[in-house]
Amino acid sequence: MRTALLQSSGRPGSVAGNLEVLDAAAARAAAAGAGLLVAPEMFLTGYAIGDGIARLAEPADGDAAGAVAHLAARHGLAIVYGYPERDGGTVYNSAQLISADGSRLANYRKTHLFGSAERGHFTPGERSLVQARLGGLTVGIMICYDVEFPENVRAHALAGTDLLVVPTANMHPFQFVAEALVPVRAWENQMYVAYANRVGPEGEFEFFGLSALAGPDGVARTRAGRGEELVVADADPAFLAASREANPYLNDRRPGLYGSLV
Amino acid sequence: MRTALLQSSGRPGSVAGNLEVLDAAAARAAAAGAGLLVAPEMFLTGYAIGDGIARLAEPADGDAAGAVAHLAARHGLAIVYGYPERDGGTVYNSAQLISADGSRLANYRKTHLFGSAERGHFTPGERSLVQARLGGLTVGIMICYDVEFPENVRAHALAGTDLLVVPTANMHPFQFVAEALVPVRAWENQMYVAYANRVGPEGEFEFFGLSALAGPDGVARTRAGRGEELVVADADPAFLAASREANPYLNDRRPGLYGSLV
Repeated sequence: MRTALLQSSGRPGSVAGNLEVLDAAAARAAAAGAGLLVAPEMFLTGYAIGDGIARLAEPADGDAAGAVAHLAARHGLAIVYGYPERDGGTVYNSAQLISADGSRLANYRKTHLFGSAERGHFTPGERSLVQARLGGLTVGIMICYDVEFPENVRAHALAGTDLLVVPTANMHPFQFVAEALVPVRAWENQMYVAYANRVGPEGEFEFFGLSALAGPDGVARTRAGRGEELVVADADPAFLAASREANPYLNDRRPGLYGSLV
Repeated sequence: MRTALLQSSGRPGSVAGNLEVLDAAAARAAAAGAGLLVAPEMFLTGYAIGDGIARLAEPADGDAAGAVAHLAARHGLAIVYGYPERDGGTVYNSAQLISADGSRLANYRKTHLFGSAERGHFTPGERSLVQARLGGLTVGIMICYDVEFPENVRAHALAGTDLLVVPTANMHPFQFVAEALVPVRAWENQMYVAYANRVGPEGEFEFFGLSALAGPDGVARTRAGRGEELVVADADPAFLAASREANPYLNDRRPGLYGSLV
């Protein structure tokens, strides 16, 4: 499945502005043959927008979700995007997968919040494993800091995730995560990992870009730089199957020795 | 603690020859100020020596261990070395840590055997967590393939390992493990990882070297090439403490979500 990564911080604070950026990106991604477009963490609203998070938070089936669904259907490709999700009085840092026909396929709430600012704005999710079928692949969703915990990605591998999409808002000085850790996650779990980051300054942060689609051989199929960019690469089910055949990590695990992790 | 990595395949099939190589390496390591010398997996006997493995296997307190202890005491530094361990009718792929005064501090039996050849020659160990105190650090031991399983290294992190020593026999085409995975293990677990590999052709294998001491910042303090080499670098307790203070991975884990791993 051809996968496009939108590396952009959009228009922080403007949902309408971000939907426009997403619309343009979806047009370009569809023209490149992509079946899936991944936008960064909190793309719908912006990340470092303080009280704007709670003010702009919407339910998973809210107006903005409807707008994204319309956009996905119009361009004929699936979209994963980050947004602040309101559920009653609670706000989650979420990412939603909407299919090419505009239906809401899956919604994930970030389980591992990063730093005091995120903990101040969000309640952590309690469901680590969110998956959906798409383009012949089992797609899993997590958000930014989540992927840095090896246990978390392993749980996806054990549950059959083929392509892990990771909307991200990662900032200086954590480039090592994008450059080294993400390819290692793909390798050690024998999956594709699609890591779509924000870019440039926002509030106190300097997002570094470096979005990538890493394959089960640990090689980045595409790697963005540090500016606004849309990159596209393929997650190939046949290559994945052959790689898993050759690499026995999941069979060679010894779960009886890992008791201290839980 | 200054740590020396012996990157060599020694003299496959000759315990006496390997003790000579170890002796020369210990002299150089001690002269460089090292408190610990790490030799590769199965260094004492050779790795691809077929039936020689069972023939040359010795108990953890056998003659060869005595020779290494004598050598450690003479040069005044601790030594970790790989060897085939005989325990009654059973043979393990083991690594032993002997202190600078010649006492046997810890013995580890590889828990994750790689491929049919290793499974043919060895029984897997059942104890994943082997540690000892050395030079102000908690030192843990695993062997080669073991470190490729993130669960395994995480268990060490949770048990307080500061410096994980990994005698290794890793071969083409798995260079990615040395180059990318080992530094990521050090980063994600906030520890030092000392990875000492064999080098050059042996039987059907081509060992690739690339031994490294990786720090908790994901940076290799030293990185060997692809030939015989002795490299030296420091595992710094103060740097490690500061790094852990700044990096909250171990505190931010959510063990309640990792149940499927065990």
